[in-house]
Amino acid sequence: MTYPNWLSQRSYLSGERMALSFEQQQWTFSEINTIALDYAGKLSALGVNESSRVAVLAKSTPEFVFVLYGCLHLGCEMVMLNERLSSNELAYQINDAEVAFILVANVLKQKVDDSRVVLFGEIENAKSVQFEPQQQWAKDRTISIMYTSGTTGHPKGVRQTAENHFSSAVSSALNIGITPEDVWLCAVPLFHISGFSILMRSLIYGMGVRLYEKFDADQSAEEICNGSVTHISVVGVTLERILTSVEQASMQASDRFKVVLAGGGPIPIAYMKRAKNCGIPVLQTYGMTETSSQTTTLQVADAERKIGSAGKPLFLYEVKTEKLGEIGEILIRGPQVTPGYIGKFSEREVQQDGWLHTGDIGYLDDEGFLFVVDRRSDLIVSGGENVYPAEIEKVLSAHPAVQEVGVCGAPSEDWGEVPVAFVVLQKEVTAEELLAYCREQLASYKVPNQLTIVESLPRNASNKLLRRELRAWV
Amino acid sequence: MTYPNWLSQRSYLSGERMALSFEQQQWTFSEINTIALDYAGKLSALGVNESSRVAVLAKSTPEFVFVLYGCLHLGCEMVMLNERLSSNELAYQINDAEVAFILVANVLKQKVDDSRVVLFGEIENAKSVQFEPQQQWAKDRTISIMYTSGTTGHPKGVRQTAENHFSSAVSSALNIGITPEDVWLCAVPLFHISGFSILMRSLIYGMGVRLYEKFDADQSAEEICNGSVTHISVVGVTLERILTSVEQASMQASDRFKVVLAGGGPIPIAYMKRAKNCGIPVLQTYGMTETSSQTTTLQVADAERKIGSAGKPLFLYEVKTEKLGEIGEILIRGPQVTPGYIGKFSEREVQQDGWLHTGDIGYLDDEGFLFVVDRRSDLIVSGGENVYPAEIEKVLSAHPAVQEVGVCGAPSEDWGEVPVAFVVLQKEVTAEELLAYCREQLASYKVPNQLTIVESLPRNASNKLLRRELRAWV
Repeated sequence: MTYPNWLSQRSYLSGERMALSFEQQQWTFSEINTIALDYAGKLSALGVNESSRVAVLAKSTPEFVFVLYGCLHLGCEMVMLNERLSSNELAYQINDAEVAFILVANVLKQKVDDSRVVLFGEIENAKSVQFEPQQQWAKDRTISIMYTSGTTGHPKGVRQTAENHFSSAVSSALNIGITPEDVWLCAVPLFHISGFSILMRSLIYGMGVRLYEKFDADQSAEEICNGSVTHISVVGVTLERILTSVEQASMQASDRFKVVLAGGGPIPIAYMKRAKNCGIPVLQTYGMTETSSQTTTLQVADAERKIGSAGKPLFLYEVKTEKLGEIGEILIRGPQVTPGYIGKFSEREVQQDGWLHTGDIGYLDDEGFLFVVDRRSDLIVSGGENVYPAEIEKVLSAHPAVQEVGVCGAPSEDWGEVPVAFVVLQKEVTAEELLAYCREQLASYKVPNQLTIVESLPRNASNKLLRRELRAWV
Repeated sequence: MTYPNWLSQRSYLSGERMALSFEQQQWTFSEINTIALDYAGKLSALGVNESSRVAVLAKSTPEFVFVLYGCLHLGCEMVMLNERLSSNELAYQINDAEVAFILVANVLKQKVDDSRVVLFGEIENAKSVQFEPQQQWAKDRTISIMYTSGTTGHPKGVRQTAENHFSSAVSSALNIGITPEDVWLCAVPLFHISGFSILMRSLIYGMGVRLYEKFDADQSAEEICNGSVTHISVVGVTLERILTSVEQASMQASDRFKVVLAGGGPIPIAYMKRAKNCGIPVLQTYGMTETSSQTTTLQVADAERKIGSAGKPLFLYEVKTEKLGEIGEILIRGPQVTPGYIGKFSEREVQQDGWLHTGDIGYLDDEGFLFVVDRRSDLIVSGGENVYPAEIEKVLSAHPAVQEVGVCGAPSEDWGEVPVAFVVLQKEVTAEELLAYCREQLASYKVPNQLTIVESLPRNASNKLLRRELRAWV
């Protein structure tokens, strides 16, 4: 059970089509394949081979894509590191994954102090050896590994196979459609499934990617309105900024522009109405690292009628709740679902009876629309980033002045949600000191937006923290 | 390894979209699913079940689609009978397939005299029983069986699985693109892979099918030019008639019309130029029953530059020749390739080392374009129908007055090719008598267009018929 090598096949079948564009530069599939082969040869010279597992840490630049595609040709597993994580957080993932190499963009070299580091500059300067790529890729080959936390606060490395990515790309195409002229604007992180899946779709569809190092609302608005891109992935906060830019310039989306794919929780209906006025179709999507991106989507036509819904599954997915027709844990089945974890959690079964137990709570209405009513492990989604309360609680609990701590999400106009913390002290300390401590240990988006010192935390009879009551305190 | 039931899933996900249209009637995916469930219940009442193998014989009408979709829900294997075959030819396939039921459109009932026949009228009148469709389809489930002949003149029943059809539909989408607004005009036979694959794409994409009972050049031209359809499958002869109609009416293809998919051998460059003048993009395709339709396609942009080429493979296919870079037998690999035959040939391996050996001879040029230089078993393709010389020779040889016979293809302006026969007699008989005999035994399109009585046939040293020399006689 194999696929033809996606890079080679695309170069062969649509070599002259635009594969990647960044600022003023662009590369065709033929050109990018040549570069990827060269990078594979360079990595090979540095000792990376098909049985290597490598970690990659970079910003969204063409060099990052070249390294990823070089690794794809080589056949090695890639652990996608989040550049916003603290050094401690990165070290945990690198060690759990037991990687052979850590490929790091020069600008991020201070993030990782490890003998396994190879800087992008060293890769570029390496003397490429002749390299013959595998022409067949096994379907169960692990392409990427992304860490995601859970109830325990310990991030788990989620495997995403060639079949996961392929099925996800196909299901998306069967939902949104594809044409040879499509260009997807990618200003979401490549180390997240939201961005990585754009690259996978690019190779599978023969579709152009317009890559941004950083999200830029005005430029995104400009490209949506002049038709130089057809798709864009956003979260609520970035959508809002694009809409403001389009509105301020009194522009309208180009006829060539097709759809905004909006993740990270339901989009406020006010945004949906503003988008409609700008001629911008917005498809809301619910998905996760374990399902290799989109699982369900809410069509534009249903957005008003089904406010707050996550929509219906993509073609190859099935979604149900534990007890049919009732509120319960959301279960997902399909070829996009990860086969499991690596590292410390590699023994943990990710599927039960073929179904992924998401931990999210929801229900399907009588028309089969999914509503997510409570998220796994009290997940906070802040500007598209997943933030797990347990992870922040673990850090704060370790502070000598802290007796106990509870974290929950608070609504935020900009970010959708932000984390806030409630702390019971055992020694004197200021909230500011505790926040400074958090900033050392955690990625900035995980640092509580507010930290309140309280007398005690709401707990139930068996002493379990009642996070719902915490949220009522907000 | 399963798929969600395609009919149920499409009804759930895009129930309100148009699934089928015929003359003035149309049905949405929700409606057609309800009908299909009703037909499944009726067929169930008549004794058909998921372990049944049924043969289906009908013209391209909505009822035919309802029966097919009912069978899909039931999970039974469908032997697709060619309504143009003679009763003898049909009997061979029915017996080889050992079907439990033969579902026959009322208008064709004189074609089959068999106790297993159930007429469509009987199905419609049956009292439907409550029926719960399978919600999961195994990937290796055999959906359809189509007979195709070969060197021996004995038709072999080719299995096409759910995975074959799904992969074929996906590969086509990755090549041509898909959008939710697509409507495919189907005036090619549903019992051939060319037509059947349109139905499969419809279910997988959620795409509308505009069904014609008979090809109609003027109506097809009208629909291409008014934009009520976006795709159409043709062979050379039907393309030419459509072009003539468009030209006579001084029309142009609608902007909404996307592509003509042209099978049955290379399209004359004169047609390609006429199509271009009419604004009609023509994609030439090479495929076969064993590959579940399209294997390679020649893009519009390459048509003039690569006259006579069959193009490049679809994304999930690999194509090579036996000796790399040289003329040789064409080998094909991919998830669209049949796992094998049924009946008398069920033991025959269809793949060797994972590759389908097509019997066709060809080469790949330095850019990777496939050229087919000689077709399997001296195959004659006449108006899109495959005609195997050996099959006609077998029939004529059985005539008491015939000593030996050789059949080959002759060029035809209308049909691309037509079969012609050369006969050596052992008793007195006229050519007209022999042709009348053929008409009793063979589908009309297989009856030689011309039959010449000769002294001897060209044979080589080992007495093998030299069909190339025969062709030189034409």
